[in-house]
Amino acid sequence: MAPTVGFAGLGAMGGGMAKNLVKEGFEVTGYDVYQPLVDSFVEAGGKAAKTPKEAASNADFFVSMVANAAQNASLLLDGPDAVIHGLGKGKTFILCSTCPPAFLPELRKRLDEEAQRPDIKLLDCPVSGGTIRAANGTLSIFSSGPDADLDNAKEVLECMSGNLYRMGEISQGTKTKTVHQLLAATNIISASEAMGLAATVGLNTQAVMEHVNKSSGASFMFENRAPHMIKNDWHPYSALGIILKDAGIVTEAARKEAFPVPLASAAEQEYLRGVQAGFLRDDDAKLVQLYLPRDKGDLVATSASADIKMNSNYQISKDTINDLLSGIHLAASVEGMAFCKKLGVDSKIMYEIISKAAGWNAMFTTSLSDLLEKDTWTLAESAHAKEVGAKLAEAVEKCNQIKYPCPMATAALQQFFFAAK
Amino acid sequence: MAPTVGFAGLGAMGGGMAKNLVKEGFEVTGYDVYQPLVDSFVEAGGKAAKTPKEAASNADFFVSMVANAAQNASLLLDGPDAVIHGLGKGKTFILCSTCPPAFLPELRKRLDEEAQRPDIKLLDCPVSGGTIRAANGTLSIFSSGPDADLDNAKEVLECMSGNLYRMGEISQGTKTKTVHQLLAATNIISASEAMGLAATVGLNTQAVMEHVNKSSGASFMFENRAPHMIKNDWHPYSALGIILKDAGIVTEAARKEAFPVPLASAAEQEYLRGVQAGFLRDDDAKLVQLYLPRDKGDLVATSASADIKMNSNYQISKDTINDLLSGIHLAASVEGMAFCKKLGVDSKIMYEIISKAAGWNAMFTTSLSDLLEKDTWTLAESAHAKEVGAKLAEAVEKCNQIKYPCPMATAALQQFFFAAK
Repeated sequence: MAPTVGFAGLGAMGGGMAKNLVKEGFEVTGYDVYQPLVDSFVEAGGKAAKTPKEAASNADFFVSMVANAAQNASLLLDGPDAVIHGLGKGKTFILCSTCPPAFLPELRKRLDEEAQRPDIKLLDCPVSGGTIRAANGTLSIFSSGPDADLDNAKEVLECMSGNLYRMGEISQGTKTKTVHQLLAATNIISASEAMGLAATVGLNTQAVMEHVNKSSGASFMFENRAPHMIKNDWHPYSALGIILKDAGIVTEAARKEAFPVPLASAAEQEYLRGVQAGFLRDDDAKLVQLYLPRDKGDLVATSASADIKMNSNYQISKDTINDLLSGIHLAASVEGMAFCKKLGVDSKIMYEIISKAAGWNAMFTTSLSDLLEKDTWTLAESAHAKEVGAKLAEAVEKCNQIKYPCPMATAALQQFFFAAK
Repeated sequence: MAPTVGFAGLGAMGGGMAKNLVKEGFEVTGYDVYQPLVDSFVEAGGKAAKTPKEAASNADFFVSMVANAAQNASLLLDGPDAVIHGLGKGKTFILCSTCPPAFLPELRKRLDEEAQRPDIKLLDCPVSGGTIRAANGTLSIFSSGPDADLDNAKEVLECMSGNLYRMGEISQGTKTKTVHQLLAATNIISASEAMGLAATVGLNTQAVMEHVNKSSGASFMFENRAPHMIKNDWHPYSALGIILKDAGIVTEAARKEAFPVPLASAAEQEYLRGVQAGFLRDDDAKLVQLYLPRDKGDLVATSASADIKMNSNYQISKDTINDLLSGIHLAASVEGMAFCKKLGVDSKIMYEIISKAAGWNAMFTTSLSDLLEKDTWTLAESAHAKEVGAKLAEAVEKCNQIKYPCPMATAALQQFFFAAK
């Protein structure tokens, strides 16, 4: 008989994960603060709980996909309705949310000392892959914790994942996710910078998108977000607030290590600019509007039709757009892997992870192999940096000529310049 | 009779402040973890204490100039030797260190609830001005706290300050310092970016420095730091670790407010790069070496002699260097004042403060008057942005041509481009 599962956080990701567990034959009791999400889960065959405690009461495993570290601490520990008051002796709490690396050891300590529940098995298992893979049970999961506890949770973890990785002790999972989100955060905003440029100079945005998707500037995030821009669709498939939180986790973790992450840092500033513009609850692709004239927020969409000319007046072509993305992606990929090494996460496993997850970009897969061999992560050592950097410099020069703001491209270009010193 | 003073933190700043109090007739008992600093203080006429408690025992006022928030919390509250166990009923703790704005209310709460010492008067009084003004008793002090408590501490605060400001309730002082440090942090690294460029293209660095000091690119920090570069003198007059900590306070406070500070954020990344290069305990002016060829770390010094030609091969002149600084300073000044408004600190008082303190730059004083009138802080509204931005764009273009990394200038230029949209 399948083990019983408690689940908290039935939103865009968690809802799909929980329903998939139901579909695969687990008995799942779900909890969420927002009743319509609970109702939808019950329609899909799940059981509803009124409190976290109730959801945990019969559970062999409790999966948490609530929004952040503060919500997880509260869910697990705070007040009479907390999970610890329901979860039986020796049962497992699987934390799947994206939290700062330092949070997991803190939570373990609070379980042991404050709550006197050293019996609870805590697993650090952040996920990646988006809502479709969540619903299909094909997420990438970066699992960490004691080996025996991971073995014990295998059935549940495998049901949720297509790629299941074991990263080591607790906090290695969140460290892995932090590096992955460095790539995600830089790639997402770069898609806006690139498509905003295409629209600004009058290129056919549909054609540019298709070109990039099969070229060196391709990324999971570009392929995923550009269509939202082309449809002028700001439904929050992935709300700005999420990547803003994750970018903050990256830059805070980097500050704790006194480690520079200039591209992630520049990306975070653009997300903050998006908050200022009022986009917090919109899809993060809406940030393309920051790059467009104030009264032409739909310019990517209106520039997608076939009768828009294919060459602009500014010597900016679809290849320029591709060069801009390739340059940013290479610099961000090196930054991410350097940070990976600093955090003590295995480079080869990380390379494999990124290659199959939402942080993927074409430069990452094709241009890092020489650095991976040496496990040395600087643009100065990269065989591709010279050519990619030169093309990025040309793209930036063209942006400067038309006063087009490209904070990611310029931040990346400085890294190529530093590397050439 | 003058009130008695306890003092903790007898380093470069605190030592000067404490000795000045002695010179002015106060009875001061000093404490520091590093014995040579205590010895030097005793030679200057101060009394030595073995513990914070002892330093506080006879004190009407206790002044703290220890390094950071964690040290202040520990000094005041932790263990049997803490200040609270020495400080008498109703006495005053004057916190002069630079701490995050959120720290002061937390400390007040811990005094009231955890330590049961609501009688202790806590004043939030960060300072600015450097070691010379510390020793002269002419610092700028951003005092905040209950008015009656500030009145009560007037004699001590006036003895330490040349410019004494009252900013409002507790945390307003640290908020003021945070905004000031945004300017300080952006100005310091810009001096390295500018002097590194001058040396790289073969300009006479002495002549460039003199030109900038009397032009629109002037700043307190440039005037202070450029001579260190010219003397190749990395004695830690102000160690990298200090401005790194302060830059982190700025960007963390901004993140808490979900407020973009792209220039401060870019500056912080350069400080982190400096840490990576091993400069943590050196003067922050040493960061100029990050901009120079690897084997020519003394190039600013060797380029200061009269026989270095005055025109470079790259169409980069002393005016280009000045334009680069002016552009960065204007964008940073607007960023700082926008953040000031966001934090709820009075713009007119802040304008006066910055104009007289270490965060000063020439663009701040000359180019913000139109924005100050309206209390609207965007480059789009600035009458000077167009011309300054155009000159900055030219300077950046020239840097790009020779692959000179200028992360501050490029980050600033993006802000001018966004403003023009």
